[in-house]
Amino acid sequence: MANILDYDTVSLDEEKRALKIIDQTLLPTRTEILKLTDIGDIWDAIYLLKVRGAPAIGVAAAIGMYVVASRYDTDDMDEFLARFASDRKYLNSSRPTAVNLSWALERMWRVCMEYKDISVPALLERLKREALDILNEDMEMCRCIGENALTLLHRGDGLLTHCNAGQLATSKYGTATSAMYLGHERGYGFKIYCDETRPLLQGARLTAYELSSAGMDVTVCCDNMVSALMREGRINAVLVGCDRVAANGDVANKIGTSVVATVAKRYGVPFYVCAPSSTIDPSVKSGKDIVIEQRPAEEVTEMWYKERMAPANVKVFNPAFDVTDNELITAIITERKILRAPYSFG
Amino acid sequence: MANILDYDTVSLDEEKRALKIIDQTLLPTRTEILKLTDIGDIWDAIYLLKVRGAPAIGVAAAIGMYVVASRYDTDDMDEFLARFASDRKYLNSSRPTAVNLSWALERMWRVCMEYKDISVPALLERLKREALDILNEDMEMCRCIGENALTLLHRGDGLLTHCNAGQLATSKYGTATSAMYLGHERGYGFKIYCDETRPLLQGARLTAYELSSAGMDVTVCCDNMVSALMREGRINAVLVGCDRVAANGDVANKIGTSVVATVAKRYGVPFYVCAPSSTIDPSVKSGKDIVIEQRPAEEVTEMWYKERMAPANVKVFNPAFDVTDNELITAIITERKILRAPYSFG
Repeated sequence: MANILDYDTVSLDEEKRALKIIDQTLLPTRTEILKLTDIGDIWDAIYLLKVRGAPAIGVAAAIGMYVVASRYDTDDMDEFLARFASDRKYLNSSRPTAVNLSWALERMWRVCMEYKDISVPALLERLKREALDILNEDMEMCRCIGENALTLLHRGDGLLTHCNAGQLATSKYGTATSAMYLGHERGYGFKIYCDETRPLLQGARLTAYELSSAGMDVTVCCDNMVSALMREGRINAVLVGCDRVAANGDVANKIGTSVVATVAKRYGVPFYVCAPSSTIDPSVKSGKDIVIEQRPAEEVTEMWYKERMAPANVKVFNPAFDVTDNELITAIITERKILRAPYSFG
Repeated sequence: MANILDYDTVSLDEEKRALKIIDQTLLPTRTEILKLTDIGDIWDAIYLLKVRGAPAIGVAAAIGMYVVASRYDTDDMDEFLARFASDRKYLNSSRPTAVNLSWALERMWRVCMEYKDISVPALLERLKREALDILNEDMEMCRCIGENALTLLHRGDGLLTHCNAGQLATSKYGTATSAMYLGHERGYGFKIYCDETRPLLQGARLTAYELSSAGMDVTVCCDNMVSALMREGRINAVLVGCDRVAANGDVANKIGTSVVATVAKRYGVPFYVCAPSSTIDPSVKSGKDIVIEQRPAEEVTEMWYKERMAPANVKVFNPAFDVTDNELITAIITERKILRAPYSFG
């Protein structure tokens, strides 16, 4: 695929045995590559959103666990497994909402269980392979989601996306953006609209950055402008990613997703959720049961600003995600197929 | 009324014959009072949102015209009127959407026409009186809107407002905030929610500032969090101001208003528009006919930031207002009465 950014969002630096990521908090003004080997640094990178996006978090956690475990410096399997279990639990606490984090850590742990009777170095080889499998499967999954989504779109469409479910949120292609990359390559002439996605501006900083770098026609707007856009008839479809899909099709995704979905419903604009199968969590019955991470007030009142933007004595409401009711979702697009209501996973 | 800010949003400095305003672009971190006497400076102050809010713009334009006209330094009525007409037209171009601007300028012009046969100094006295009448009527109008709105609210209500339709947008009390001030004084114990209102953050900077200064319980959130708030049942009513009401009840107000209204409708939360009669414009049939001001891209991509927040090569959609369809509006509250659908002004 042409025009994809010329670095990987998440990868394994084999020589240095390090988790290699781009510090996404510095984009679009600075491109800084981090090589992490310490469990505390990896936890921080996930919590502080240096690496973010549900699929990328899963890949980073898998590679991160391999990298950390490769430094345990023990041949004793019991000690190895005890440390692995403890580090896995710790890393899993960095972001509670994205299911990919626990899913990837669970896959790594299953390898430990399956191969606990071989030597520690041999197990480490297996863990490395599993982490790279997760990464490669993620790329292929994104490509397939894009092919499926593209069947729902038309040449010249105006497409709105929220937050960053792009290349920077995955190993490659993105989920919500995958059809945009594929369509761009095939001359579809999409007009892309990115809402900025407060408080951390992933739409303005990351999605607009990666899609315009790829040569697409990109317009940025504030989150509260989506109704004006749709009223003007500029949007033919909304494509978003997701962090967790409940059994009934309710979707947890970046805060504000349900606002876009509600407005899209009013204007009759199709609202598509691009969801890797790994984000579907049948153990959660509905959106009500999804834990929503609350984040620091300063993200709203002062982050990105040199001056404080709200008075000191106010409270702040800052959930990282919201739940979009299944009835607002036109289709859920996975790497395998396009699902329509009524949704039932289980 | 207790706890109102201890300075006026807009006033006449009689001694200096100057329009006196607070520079609202510097709040909440700095309080700087401007005394303006030059038509270009007054135009800039309105265009750059140093004074903003439909009622306050009207008052500022009226006082501004008096102040400017008092410096024409001519006793020739024809010359006086020619210059007044020209300055009026220029000032009217500073913000196209708010009807109060043209309405206040029209009132001042009518005084010129009515008293064109007296002397210039006597006409100036009449113009000063008219400007101060507009200011005092604005305060009384706001108080009455608050009394009317308060009849729709209940003790302990969670109230959401968008942008700043507060004391800082009027001469006193505000429109959307008037019932909040009155209720606060009477011990209603409201919980106030201010969405930040991108791009210029009038909600976070101005509304949160004036209401928390008055001792209210204020929570700030991003614009895209209003669905999460309503889903949690925290909001019992939405109160917003408006810039222009069309004959059919469609309302033009700060960009994002229609997003809040759409989400409120979904969650069954009453959505009230607080509208001075002067904002009702029967000459405009529906929202389609309201001119929406487009503002500079930098407001979205870099204003308030030291670093650019979006890539350089993207387009920006930045309308200052949007239109809320009449069917989303539970009631329009004027200083005279509470109007409900179907709306018909004319």
